[in-house]
Amino acid sequence: MKRTIYTEDHEAFRASVREFLERSVVPHVEQHAADKSLPRDFWLEAGKQGFLGLEVPDEFGGAKDLQGGDYRFNAVLMEELSFVNAALSSCVGIHADIVAPYLVELTTEEQRQRWLPGVASGETLCAIGMTEPSGGSDLAALKTTAVRDGDDWVVNGSKTFITNGYSADLVVTAVRTSPEKGARGITLFGIETDKPGFSRGRKLDKVGQDESDTAELFFEDVRVTDADVVGELDNGFIHMMQNLPQERLGCAISNLAHAKQILVETLQYTKDRKAFGQGVGSFQHNKFLLAELFTQVDVTQAYVDQCVLAHSAGDLTPTDAAKAKWWTSQVQNEILDHCVQLHGGYGFMNEYRVARAWRDARVSKIWAGSNEIMKELIGRDLGL
Amino acid sequence: MKRTIYTEDHEAFRASVREFLERSVVPHVEQHAADKSLPRDFWLEAGKQGFLGLEVPDEFGGAKDLQGGDYRFNAVLMEELSFVNAALSSCVGIHADIVAPYLVELTTEEQRQRWLPGVASGETLCAIGMTEPSGGSDLAALKTTAVRDGDDWVVNGSKTFITNGYSADLVVTAVRTSPEKGARGITLFGIETDKPGFSRGRKLDKVGQDESDTAELFFEDVRVTDADVVGELDNGFIHMMQNLPQERLGCAISNLAHAKQILVETLQYTKDRKAFGQGVGSFQHNKFLLAELFTQVDVTQAYVDQCVLAHSAGDLTPTDAAKAKWWTSQVQNEILDHCVQLHGGYGFMNEYRVARAWRDARVSKIWAGSNEIMKELIGRDLGL
Amino acid sequence: MKRTIYTEDHEAFRASVREFLERSVVPHVEQHAADKSLPRDFWLEAGKQGFLGLEVPDEFGGAKDLQGGDYRFNAVLMEELSFVNAALSSCVGIHADIVAPYLVELTTEEQRQRWLPGVASGETLCAIGMTEPSGGSDLAALKTTAVRDGDDWVVNGSKTFITNGYSADLVVTAVRTSPEKGARGITLFGIETDKPGFSRGRKLDKVGQDESDTAELFFEDVRVTDADVVGELDNGFIHMMQNLPQERLGCAISNLAHAKQILVETLQYTKDRKAFGQGVGSFQHNKFLLAELFTQVDVTQAYVDQCVLAHSAGDLTPTDAAKAKWWTSQVQNEILDHCVQLHGGYGFMNEYRVARAWRDARVSKIWAGSNEIMKELIGRDLGL
Amino acid sequence: MKRTIYTEDHEAFRASVREFLERSVVPHVEQHAADKSLPRDFWLEAGKQGFLGLEVPDEFGGAKDLQGGDYRFNAVLMEELSFVNAALSSCVGIHADIVAPYLVELTTEEQRQRWLPGVASGETLCAIGMTEPSGGSDLAALKTTAVRDGDDWVVNGSKTFITNGYSADLVVTAVRTSPEKGARGITLFGIETDKPGFSRGRKLDKVGQDESDTAELFFEDVRVTDADVVGELDNGFIHMMQNLPQERLGCAISNLAHAKQILVETLQYTKDRKAFGQGVGSFQHNKFLLAELFTQVDVTQAYVDQCVLAHSAGDLTPTDAAKAKWWTSQVQNEILDHCVQLHGGYGFMNEYRVARAWRDARVSKIWAGSNEIMKELIGRDLGL
Repeated sequence: MKRTIYTEDHEAFRASVREFLERSVVPHVEQHAADKSLPRDFWLEAGKQGFLGLEVPDEFGGAKDLQGGDYRFNAVLMEELSFVNAALSSCVGIHADIVAPYLVELTTEEQRQRWLPGVASGETLCAIGMTEPSGGSDLAALKTTAVRDGDDWVVNGSKTFITNGYSADLVVTAVRTSPEKGARGITLFGIETDKPGFSRGRKLDKVGQDESDTAELFFEDVRVTDADVVGELDNGFIHMMQNLPQERLGCAISNLAHAKQILVETLQYTKDRKAFGQGVGSFQHNKFLLAELFTQVDVTQAYVDQCVLAHSAGDLTPTDAAKAKWWTSQVQNEILDHCVQLHGGYGFMNEYRVARAWRDARVSKIWAGSNEIMKELIGRDLGL
Repeated sequence: MKRTIYTEDHEAFRASVREFLERSVVPHVEQHAADKSLPRDFWLEAGKQGFLGLEVPDEFGGAKDLQGGDYRFNAVLMEELSFVNAALSSCVGIHADIVAPYLVELTTEEQRQRWLPGVASGETLCAIGMTEPSGGSDLAALKTTAVRDGDDWVVNGSKTFITNGYSADLVVTAVRTSPEKGARGITLFGIETDKPGFSRGRKLDKVGQDESDTAELFFEDVRVTDADVVGELDNGFIHMMQNLPQERLGCAISNLAHAKQILVETLQYTKDRKAFGQGVGSFQHNKFLLAELFTQVDVTQAYVDQCVLAHSAGDLTPTDAAKAKWWTSQVQNEILDHCVQLHGGYGFMNEYRVARAWRDARVSKIWAGSNEIMKELIGRDLGL
Repeated sequence: MKRTIYTEDHEAFRASVREFLERSVVPHVEQHAADKSLPRDFWLEAGKQGFLGLEVPDEFGGAKDLQGGDYRFNAVLMEELSFVNAALSSCVGIHADIVAPYLVELTTEEQRQRWLPGVASGETLCAIGMTEPSGGSDLAALKTTAVRDGDDWVVNGSKTFITNGYSADLVVTAVRTSPEKGARGITLFGIETDKPGFSRGRKLDKVGQDESDTAELFFEDVRVTDADVVGELDNGFIHMMQNLPQERLGCAISNLAHAKQILVETLQYTKDRKAFGQGVGSFQHNKFLLAELFTQVDVTQAYVDQCVLAHSAGDLTPTDAAKAKWWTSQVQNEILDHCVQLHGGYGFMNEYRVARAWRDARVSKIWAGSNEIMKELIGRDLGL
Repeated sequence: MKRTIYTEDHEAFRASVREFLERSVVPHVEQHAADKSLPRDFWLEAGKQGFLGLEVPDEFGGAKDLQGGDYRFNAVLMEELSFVNAALSSCVGIHADIVAPYLVELTTEEQRQRWLPGVASGETLCAIGMTEPSGGSDLAALKTTAVRDGDDWVVNGSKTFITNGYSADLVVTAVRTSPEKGARGITLFGIETDKPGFSRGRKLDKVGQDESDTAELFFEDVRVTDADVVGELDNGFIHMMQNLPQERLGCAISNLAHAKQILVETLQYTKDRKAFGQGVGSFQHNKFLLAELFTQVDVTQAYVDQCVLAHSAGDLTPTDAAKAKWWTSQVQNEILDHCVQLHGGYGFMNEYRVARAWRDARVSKIWAGSNEIMKELIGRDLGL
């Protein structure tokens, strides 16, 4: 099914992204995986190309005004990153698509001047600190606290599973400021990682997405001030809720683009690989399976594209985004599991993209609100 | 997810269809099921309202010119019919959405004058005769033959599973005219059912869709002439291939609309029905299940809507339609099976709509090209 | 996989059951379906053959002592009945395998003399009345009450979905005797259906199992006495809990035997039915599917057989039985849905066994404790 | 469901295996994973304990006579190894359960004396070389050849995905000796890996089973003689077919034991891990899921146990084994995917057993004859 949501402008942007990736990123992915991290050079180069500032107003070095806040450019970027590998779109997504809107929409002029130019240029790498070791999806149980001490806030606690966490310069961190107020006592702080008392654990040894740095963060008497509060005091939960649809849509775009790319490569593999005298893809079982998987891609793409249009028009509901998130991560995992099987023994070898993709994809059913949390949200929206 | 494909004109048309159905059809569905047939009154009334002529040019009593061939009107009609029951959309779909295009596009002026006014008015009820008892989806194995005898063709053979077959006045029938030419030796004839030698078996006792009449048709030395050939001699296979995308898209629209309506009703049921002191829908297992099913509906609707737009623009490929057909029939059956389960014991009682809907839906994975045939077609399109 | 649980004695018993069914039942199944009921002649003849008394001590006309309470004979009976159709095993199962143990184990000598000879001979047809229109699986919400009036109990209320309900002479009925005691205030009464105030609704119009009579029962000031109490007063819930494992195991045996028989017939069909020049079963997609379904049967049979042995040894836990019940009903429905598909259009025609079997099977996921209730029980047993 | 196939003797053997594993293996698994190999010390110690000689006659240092060829001891060994990790049972299984029977049943007295003592002691580590880079499951396409040169055979070619391949001392290798005879022109050679011309690639970088060494093997003019032929010349295909049922049963035992162990640990995790104030396992969605998974384990165990008994009695058919292999690997992967999800973000961290287990399990659907090949075999056995 031919897609219809993109215009020539989007396709021109896609070409520029793709050219950048092929030139500056693809040759280095093995190194990224070995390093468990994207190098700062990558970020600076991506910033120079203008790919980190789609959410940042032009006056701070971004391209938001130029592109009229058209989310389709973000979508194109996420798709192209996902074609290279899942971790790339995760890392860039966190920085440019997820954290940036907090810094643009909830900040003071001073904060914008302090942070946004670096966001757009790649000099200020961003992460977001929500999840805690004990907490998972239950924000009301947040244990990291900030306590008033004069004009300062003193932050203590820890965060885990933080994408970009090992390299980040700035972490938008959810912190409990009013112990007695549950989810309504949480504040977001922009915490610069050169502050005393901030430290990081090692890069986590993950099942997949080797190219991303994921880390545990520790806050030991880290001093911040009111000037570091992002948005309103005690209103962090609402701020996060408002930004989650874009985060989840971004996940959905990447989930599907990633799966589709590997599926297309797998189709080619099943034509090239022979057994019993024919391409393995032409055995009826495999042929029907591939027919099913390509159908799944097309059907899912139609929904994701509709979400992208809705989001560009400001109409995407949290429920729509929740549906997109769980469905695409489920679909991605199913497709990639079949792609592994279609590769036979090679599907179990890390030197094959399909093997890595299969490992990479697994987390998508867990993070950004687990699929179970998504279903809870959708169920509530149904009045249940 | 809010749908975006319909304009005010379509919604006005929807309102008129719905008003007609509520007034003239809904009160009689029990009788339709008992009769295993829609009465002629229904057809005449639907014709009078203009619902049977969406594919028929205005000069022959239809509304095609008026509505500019915009397939979205057809889609609205199919949706509304499906909300009442599946058989209704099957019967009307065969007549107005599937057979009519053959009679409009492939016919001579004489044929159009002979047939189309009755199609639009409901006086000439139509069916299409492809499937044979021994044949299933294998058109190359077609055994009904037409043999030249002077200026006549003498038709012998039988067809089965023919929707509207018991009542039809005109059957577009696929007949072998060139025995040695396989699929390329098939011709379509418009066979009027008052011809000597034509007869019908009893109304078939089906698992579901009780309201439709489905019958076996017998041709014993039925004489037709060149004036009854629809399209080109020996070119029937191609003619059918060209019309199948619209047939399959019509199925897809109905499959989904039918499932969605029952799902909406089931959601309400699970709120009203209490067990262990709460609405059964609010148990987490059911809540998550309903969340999944509504996601499935939204995702699938996005794809079907995109197909409707593509078809209106003349861009729907046979592969797109095949994807829509198998996917929606699979989705429909899955959804309805869960809806039965959510009704508990009442889901097994025919007086409940959900029970009938479950039975009705089963055939959608089989007919109009079985889902297996769809996957074969999609697989070929992938180059397998 | 060769089954190993049966000895020559069981196989001899199987042969006698099969001979009886082929002679006295198979020729009449169309009539049973048309009547929505098994005729009394069937019951009397089955009684004469000794097939209704496997749970009844020999002194009351049964065969329990003779066969040492070996449940494998019951299993053989259920399997053979299921091979004919699902309703047959449901009706006989309720009478002989489910109700009989209540009447044997919980009764007084007077009750045994009053009821058991008729149970064994088929003259006293039994049903069990648990489910109520408003209640489903929630026994604590039971609304049928018995109120003391002198030496009598006066019963008021209704039951629904009662297999054998339209014909039954004796209904073991769960009745609330202590309103304030929840599940612990329920008593079982053996209610003879010729008592004043007892009446029945029409035979319910079900999705499947046409051959069984299922009815709603009404109790309007029906007078019973202490002599009609089955088991202990207010202890009915416990009595039911104790008998449920056998009921569920019986369901499991029937579920699988029914599915297996239709699958074997379907395999043959796919060899006989040709398309594109070969048996349809030999297309790889169908071949793999049939391989999967036969695997499912073998794997499931191993578990059911192990349960039968465990139950014969008195070791079957309620959790084991719950697992057997939900798993087999799920498997049955999956297998039969595929069998329908493998029959193509004929799978949607009621004259084909596969079509009926598909309809018949649906209820097995709902009754005898829905599959959701089974998972709840298993989950509790896991400590959750 | 209580298992019934093991006696006290088997349980005593289990205790000795478990004691050995806890003492000598469990403390070193991190090292094994880092080394991508089990150390020779492990093999020697396992040999000393008698765990490598269950298939080896007592006169050559094994325990086969003592235990009467009772395959249940093998099953106990595989289960216990799998509880530690999947790679352990894979490596030991290849050596002791898969290769040993070839060396016992098909060999000359000279060969038995040459090889078997080392097999039992762990000094002669074994592998089996079937799969080739170009070939997968298609043995008729085997390209490694042996050509007569005087009294020698000169072997050229390569094998891949060879478990134990990096460390093996002896590789039973399938080689084409008669080019024109397809599958009937294959001979097995016992090739000692110190022969000139034999070499190995690096340890393969696999998705999982890090603790096993898997390698590509190269044969460049490796000279062997008739004294190295295992079994009959040109009869290797038949020899492999005859040994595959035991290999596949061994896989099935390990697949299930591995999944079960992780599931039990996951259940505990879901009790310990709290969210929203309760153990996450007690949310109904998770509770039902765990109920389903434990049912799946019990049902599957019943079948595997029946296969073990049948194999001990010499009755296991290739079809039974094929069913066991594909079913258990499917079940294993499904269960472990859910176990990951139940761990939330920790399920994506390699330090958690569940994460590794998930990666380890993936290959089980591919190797030992892919699941697709299994279904092909079962389908043929059905006459399709």
